[in-house]
Amino acid sequence: MNRAQERLHSLLQRKKLDAILFWSLENIRFLCGFTGSDGALVYGREERVFLSDSRYEEQAGEEVRGAVFQRYRKKNEGIARSLRALRVKRLGFEASALTWETYQRLKEHLSRVTLVPLTTEISSLRACKEPAEIEKTRKAIQIASDSFLDTMPRLKAGVREKTAGDFLEFRMKRRGGESSSFPIIVASGPRAALPHGKASDKRMEKGETVVVDFGVRYQGYHSDETKTMILGRLDARKKKVYDLVRKAQEKAIRATRPGVSVRSIDRAAREVISRAGYGQFFGHGTGHGIGLAVHEYPTLSPRGTGVVEAGMIFSVEPGVYLPGWGGVRLEDLVLVTDRGCEVLTYLSKDLKDNVLKG
Amino acid sequence: MNRAQERLHSLLQRKKLDAILFWSLENIRFLCGFTGSDGALVYGREERVFLSDSRYEEQAGEEVRGAVFQRYRKKNEGIARSLRALRVKRLGFEASALTWETYQRLKEHLSRVTLVPLTTEISSLRACKEPAEIEKTRKAIQIASDSFLDTMPRLKAGVREKTAGDFLEFRMKRRGGESSSFPIIVASGPRAALPHGKASDKRMEKGETVVVDFGVRYQGYHSDETKTMILGRLDARKKKVYDLVRKAQEKAIRATRPGVSVRSIDRAAREVISRAGYGQFFGHGTGHGIGLAVHEYPTLSPRGTGVVEAGMIFSVEPGVYLPGWGGVRLEDLVLVTDRGCEVLTYLSKDLKDNVLKG
Repeated sequence: MNRAQERLHSLLQRKKLDAILFWSLENIRFLCGFTGSDGALVYGREERVFLSDSRYEEQAGEEVRGAVFQRYRKKNEGIARSLRALRVKRLGFEASALTWETYQRLKEHLSRVTLVPLTTEISSLRACKEPAEIEKTRKAIQIASDSFLDTMPRLKAGVREKTAGDFLEFRMKRRGGESSSFPIIVASGPRAALPHGKASDKRMEKGETVVVDFGVRYQGYHSDETKTMILGRLDARKKKVYDLVRKAQEKAIRATRPGVSVRSIDRAAREVISRAGYGQFFGHGTGHGIGLAVHEYPTLSPRGTGVVEAGMIFSVEPGVYLPGWGGVRLEDLVLVTDRGCEVLTYLSKDLKDNVLKG
Repeated sequence: MNRAQERLHSLLQRKKLDAILFWSLENIRFLCGFTGSDGALVYGREERVFLSDSRYEEQAGEEVRGAVFQRYRKKNEGIARSLRALRVKRLGFEASALTWETYQRLKEHLSRVTLVPLTTEISSLRACKEPAEIEKTRKAIQIASDSFLDTMPRLKAGVREKTAGDFLEFRMKRRGGESSSFPIIVASGPRAALPHGKASDKRMEKGETVVVDFGVRYQGYHSDETKTMILGRLDARKKKVYDLVRKAQEKAIRATRPGVSVRSIDRAAREVISRAGYGQFFGHGTGHGIGLAVHEYPTLSPRGTGVVEAGMIFSVEPGVYLPGWGGVRLEDLVLVTDRGCEVLTYLSKDLKDNVLKG
């Protein structure tokens, strides 16, 4: 039994559940290997049943491990039938994965089953990575990094943001990535003040700051990294904001080790920025867990909950965004080790390496 | 007032609602223009408020029309504050967009508000397209078609499915598409029996059938189309299955006009395939609405509900999948007109145009 299986086993006992119904595709993949886009997993104390429709029968046969496959025509009826066969009376469910409507419909089919919502009890299920998961993440980072280097010559004045972003995505796929982790952000000049400024038709210009946020999925596992570059001219304000964000990031990375609260890592970065008077311009959290989902537990923010554990992989990505002027964000992925953390992403975030000829 | 606004107006009256809370990004974009990835829209009888956090303040200022912007730090608290200011007592919500957990948390903040789930009442909100939406869909189809033609020389023996799929995606983006509508399917030989066979590292071989399912998003609107090609050798069985699927598709397209049930279009295709003895090998629905979402109302399946209306755009995509052998799927998008429908996709689905040299 691996760590996740042990946790589920004790959760079933603690909550007196006969089984847990998994609905989210990430948890389904994590627990039984199925990579398709529809299905459900009944995870019982002894038995596990993966259910899907005829479109996925052949794929399930190839992929699913540790669970029996059952085909349904109507999802809720299939689940109900399976639960009856397993004599499930108390069923946990993923409260953050079922919609209100799905829950109601399922309930109609399960009149004799007590449904128990699971929230924080399972949100951290995938947080601590197994060695094979860490290797896939490393490989994703390598693909993304190599592809970024392929793209460097196109990060210059006169090129459209989208042209550079599309090329980066194409390279990530040609280098073996499954897909971009998210729509690539290439935000130049004033657009760099948009924390989520998807690559647009705007041309990059000499003297602008360019934020590039990118990542790739490899065998289900995601990378995520942000570089900020200055095209040509570095002025005092750009240097000041860049140095500040870099300092905040380094402080947060140094604060990362098992046993500290995730909130304290956010605080480490936020204090640096607030003390310099830029607190109101750092409007997002400092980081997020990453794995089969791009954003997963833990959330490193002022309201984040939980404690850092060895094996977690999350981003550390403070930023400062000044409306009308632009912004800087620096993002690395870290793997929590027994005594601190290892920074997995390796493209330089030093200012000197990020002033381009333009 | 456009058609959707009229429908919402009468829904508010009919259900005695003071406002509807929109949570799904597609409906938010549809109703107020915001294209970011987090926020909520309170749609009242007179007033509309779009809420999001500081990351999206600048973007909301540029994009949002017909709604006032309000910033929140905590989403549920921001929504609660806005509803109090608007004196909302009865609030409709999207039952298919809120998760069970989000609903419960929202409820804690809205102790004095009656929450009314909306399901079928709003599922068809975006079904009938305005002229500007139809134009964007046409443009998406054009980008995808041109990109497919760019890719044709790579659909041949010896090339990996993923290489062809990656190139097609790259071309779609270079031709102005925002992103692929979904992971492109390139499924050759026995893999063509997987209705959702994402492009793999398998090389295409002479004599194989290749199913390519692709589409692109343009200004938020999606295209979706499937071609099936035979590389080199056409044998009797391939011809038989292809002709059968083509006949089923044509039958369904001819059955499409305002006033008929969506189910009857599915039945038209399904009967052709069942009568030929292949019914059990057509395991999915005949089509789906498309627009701001790749899959939206209506669903053309044996269990689909609703009536066809002029202005709807949906796919017609029967298929036959024979495990171990392969499969054929043919998919076009149709726009329902006053008396029938117009087939919007224009790449040939005739067998003679789809036997490639290989």
